[in-house]
Amino acid sequence: MLEFALPLEKDKDKPIYMQLYEYIKREIISGRIEPNTKLPSIRQLSSNLKVSRTTIEATYHQLYVEGYIVSQPKVGYFVNTIADNTFDNKKTSSINKADNIQETVSKMVEYDFRNDYIDRQSFDFTLWRKYLNKALMLDSERFLTYGSHQGEIELRKEIAKYVHQSRGVVCTPEQIIIGAGVQTLLSMLCGILKPHYTHIGFEDPGFRQARYIFKDHNFNIIPIKLDNDGINVKLLAESKAKIVYVSPSHQFPMGSIMSINKRIQLLNWAHENETLIIEDDYDSELRYSGRPIPSLQGLSEGSNVIYLGTFSKILLPSMRISYMILPPKLLALYKEHKKKYNQTSSQIEQIALSLFMKEGMLEKHIRKLRKIYAKKNQLLITTIDKIMKEKVTVMGTETGLHILLELKSPHTPDKITSLAEKVGVKVTPISNYFINSSHNKYPLVLLSYGGIPIEHIEPAIKLLHKVWFEDNFHLG
Amino acid sequence: MLEFALPLEKDKDKPIYMQLYEYIKREIISGRIEPNTKLPSIRQLSSNLKVSRTTIEATYHQLYVEGYIVSQPKVGYFVNTIADNTFDNKKTSSINKADNIQETVSKMVEYDFRNDYIDRQSFDFTLWRKYLNKALMLDSERFLTYGSHQGEIELRKEIAKYVHQSRGVVCTPEQIIIGAGVQTLLSMLCGILKPHYTHIGFEDPGFRQARYIFKDHNFNIIPIKLDNDGINVKLLAESKAKIVYVSPSHQFPMGSIMSINKRIQLLNWAHENETLIIEDDYDSELRYSGRPIPSLQGLSEGSNVIYLGTFSKILLPSMRISYMILPPKLLALYKEHKKKYNQTSSQIEQIALSLFMKEGMLEKHIRKLRKIYAKKNQLLITTIDKIMKEKVTVMGTETGLHILLELKSPHTPDKITSLAEKVGVKVTPISNYFINSSHNKYPLVLLSYGGIPIEHIEPAIKLLHKVWFEDNFHLG
Repeated sequence: MLEFALPLEKDKDKPIYMQLYEYIKREIISGRIEPNTKLPSIRQLSSNLKVSRTTIEATYHQLYVEGYIVSQPKVGYFVNTIADNTFDNKKTSSINKADNIQETVSKMVEYDFRNDYIDRQSFDFTLWRKYLNKALMLDSERFLTYGSHQGEIELRKEIAKYVHQSRGVVCTPEQIIIGAGVQTLLSMLCGILKPHYTHIGFEDPGFRQARYIFKDHNFNIIPIKLDNDGINVKLLAESKAKIVYVSPSHQFPMGSIMSINKRIQLLNWAHENETLIIEDDYDSELRYSGRPIPSLQGLSEGSNVIYLGTFSKILLPSMRISYMILPPKLLALYKEHKKKYNQTSSQIEQIALSLFMKEGMLEKHIRKLRKIYAKKNQLLITTIDKIMKEKVTVMGTETGLHILLELKSPHTPDKITSLAEKVGVKVTPISNYFINSSHNKYPLVLLSYGGIPIEHIEPAIKLLHKVWFEDNFHLG
Repeated sequence: MLEFALPLEKDKDKPIYMQLYEYIKREIISGRIEPNTKLPSIRQLSSNLKVSRTTIEATYHQLYVEGYIVSQPKVGYFVNTIADNTFDNKKTSSINKADNIQETVSKMVEYDFRNDYIDRQSFDFTLWRKYLNKALMLDSERFLTYGSHQGEIELRKEIAKYVHQSRGVVCTPEQIIIGAGVQTLLSMLCGILKPHYTHIGFEDPGFRQARYIFKDHNFNIIPIKLDNDGINVKLLAESKAKIVYVSPSHQFPMGSIMSINKRIQLLNWAHENETLIIEDDYDSELRYSGRPIPSLQGLSEGSNVIYLGTFSKILLPSMRISYMILPPKLLALYKEHKKKYNQTSSQIEQIALSLFMKEGMLEKHIRKLRKIYAKKNQLLITTIDKIMKEKVTVMGTETGLHILLELKSPHTPDKITSLAEKVGVKVTPISNYFINSSHNKYPLVLLSYGGIPIEHIEPAIKLLHKVWFEDNFHLG
């Protein structure tokens, strides 16, 4: 075995690590140690030279980075033949391998009813490119900074107009905060509310991605049961919660709509107890029948309600732009904290979106979306009716991009989901969204039809029918 | 005063709110109530009709949203003349007012040495537009989903290569997490580490935006004093901290570089106590003299170090793309939590950046930046030497986009900053970054020269000299 004999001087100007590094480097360059010679292990050398393992690691690492030695995992370090550049090849091949694994996994799903796609025909990439280019050609100097903490003023103006027209939300641009997704905005909200609030009520089942953020920030999470027309306000009022998180216009995941009476009860609760309501209004622009449901925020003229909206469903989920509208009474508190948190949404995309909205493109786009999704929604429901008949009940069909299926089956939602997966259909079990365990008589699964091509709907439902109701068990 | 007489039926199918709304609407449409008639106040009507104020608010709001009535702040609601559309005008004028205030504020600063700009000549927007377009033309279908939780694989591969070449960081793409800024990544890290860690050490002074996030997540923040060559490892070891946040290659804000001996001490601390080091390596690609400083991450071959990097300084701060590299031992823990947190960086910009890097454009861009900033750096230092002479000491000059000025003056850093502001020069007082109060003999201020045009440097330094050393006080 190779041995090093060198005088290491602890009090010299040069640290041990550097002395050892220079010594070995000289030995390699001079040819005194030949290519492919195995270096002593870190443990051995550390004990031979009586220096720490970290020092040896640092030395070897520096030699490795500069290409003097190469590493064979679980074997050790070897002196390099410099011209070979073995190092780079190794790196590339391990990267490609990881990539292939990813591809294999995603190829197994043939029909995808998962919750994170939008329709592939819906988005006009050429048009969007035009707006990105426009944004970049306007006043590009603004993009040289981090941009407004709160979000670009042009976009906040357009959002104020948009939410007013489409959702009856009452606000000024000063109340709007833009951020890269609802989670990012909630993180900031937690930071702001924390010293003043400790308990938050959540719909059970409900949107878990929001719950995680409050849990991360040490809030006490209080699950509140749902009635058919939304959260049980009586249970909420009896709890310790001083904030509540609701999705009144299209409850996620149950699909129910909060009745106007319950809305008023909830607003009364907030008004009388000086508590806060967080209204997650994630997809109610996409409504296919009946009158639009007024937002809670609008109903209360903005007091006591923190309103959350997003462009993920109505534009592009991969463009990370969401917004939070604060009630006037929280503005002073927000201003105290504002500069603590950098903006997270891309500034170029914010400006592009503001131009897109200003020129009426968003309105036009949503009209187009309503047509596309209404057609899919209708086809999905009639296909299920036709094929599965009385074996299922379909719920939450009037709004948004998903419906709920209740199966007259003795299985759990997880079992139902894994059966679907066997035939290449991806659905989401409702159990994913419960805080306490569910007490539903029958299993519930979520079918999101945003991303699935319309021609996939019938074959997918046929497969589901077969695996759920024909192959495996008899109906009750 | 106008009075309403209507039969409200509590048990009717229609809620009170809706009955009242329909009644008033009919009265207005029929002309029975004339335009400009003042409606009873919410309080009055609530007491007259014996229904809650929230119900009246909801009614008025709905009428207001639909344009039947208008509001005069602090006066009340009036029946609208429908054709006038007073409502929209009001909205717009209040928005414009807010906008003008913003502009007035930003015009007061003539010479800007603040910490959030990059050079206006440095970025080629035409080239970047080309890459955004390229990204959109590739495989646009991928943009229809939320994208990878961890960040697009193409970009993670490029980052792995880049950090290896430029910073000696050793990692695979599997260890890299992309996010919209360091704060967003730290928020996620807090969620992951929380059950296992409670105390974190921070450099004092240090990067406060990181500290806020840990504080928001209920971590105990332990300030650790700095020596001339970085954080005092002895104090750290004596504290309860099981994680430490450091900026070893260019301490923020002091500008010092952690010595190799201290680096090894710090890595030993982590190794021996199974603790974690968060290495914030925010700008060390921009180095103007001497050898590049190897990263802590590389020195330890990735064990015990969480490495943070960003494209804010070397590309565009308004494009929100940063990355966090986890040590292998944290990967299993991350995978448990991965799906809780949606990706926050724009997917289109991630792909554009990966192409930009793959085609060697980032490397080229950084070479260009080094030239631009080295010139500014040099001019700034020589100008200060020439004009302020022995009245100041300049520190932290070898790396990045800011220097530190120590003024031989009896004033506080805040006073120094407000004096500068008086003559239209914006600098940042060091006191902003301290956890405990500073015990420096002389005031320190930060001058960031990223954004300031090179021809502004001399006039700005002259103004500073005048207001700091000529007008106001004698030197000691």
